[in-house]
Amino acid sequence: MKNAVRIVVAAAVIVSALPAMAQFQKPEDAVKYRQASFTVMAAHFGRIGAMVQGKVPFDAKAAQDNAALVETMSKLPWAGFGADTESVASKAKPEIWKEKAKFDQSNEKLLAAATALNTAAKSGNLDTIKKAFGETAATCKACHDDYRAK
Amino acid sequence: MKNAVRIVVAAAVIVSALPAMAQFQKPEDAVKYRQASFTVMAAHFGRIGAMVQGKVPFDAKAAQDNAALVETMSKLPWAGFGADTESVASKAKPEIWKEKAKFDQSNEKLLAAATALNTAAKSGNLDTIKKAFGETAATCKACHDDYRAK
Repeated sequence: MKNAVRIVVAAAVIVSALPAMAQFQKPEDAVKYRQASFTVMAAHFGRIGAMVQGKVPFDAKAAQDNAALVETMSKLPWAGFGADTESVASKAKPEIWKEKAKFDQSNEKLLAAATALNTAAKSGNLDTIKKAFGETAATCKACHDDYRAK
Repeated sequence: MKNAVRIVVAAAVIVSALPAMAQFQKPEDAVKYRQASFTVMAAHFGRIGAMVQGKVPFDAKAAQDNAALVETMSKLPWAGFGADTESVASKAKPEIWKEKAKFDQSNEKLLAAATALNTAAKSGNLDTIKKAFGETAATCKACHDDYRAK
């Protein structure tokens, strides 16, 4: 009983510090969230990159784990590009909101590429992974070129 | 063919900006990664919290999606607490590295709670989710109390 009370109090304390709405409490939270999602995605994508480039030995299991995470993370950042985030300082270019449909298409290309990378990773074949990795990296670069300030 | 060349060049450009080692190129990258993982985890945990607290209507599918992400994210930050990150400025207390085994146990409690929360979310029962949410929040709070500076 005492434990139950403690748990409820702990939950209340924790949650009061978190986004309480379906999405984000304020635009800054959305920007922080999308940047965090990109950071986690990039870290795991980079680990596959290191194998693809021969910088670390190929480890089929690690490639699979990282590719699964890349696919999961690839779905997340976009919720953080709401119209109310345009005025928050970041590397995001105004073109994102000027041509939102084109930006969304760009994101969908990443999603498709990340899904293909995850499938490729399951093959356990480094050449297959290499090709899917390159195609995924190309979608990152295309979007960065158009929509991220240097 | 031209496309293939473009893809390889794009891959090289992208990857050069990413962690190339199995883990992290420098301690600061590890700290950024662990903080980003916590940010993403907290955002999705908070969305379940909003439902549990009645701030937003209960949506069983959204609860499931968010709980699956919380479980996935709960596994990630710990790789970013390597011994070489102790000297990087952050809210992480030195106790983390002084009593690493106890800290690891603390993390395992979160992992178990997040797995239970994911299972609870699949039940579609708000009371079941509420209980699992509270228990997960308690593991967050316990670890923050011990290992995170105010």
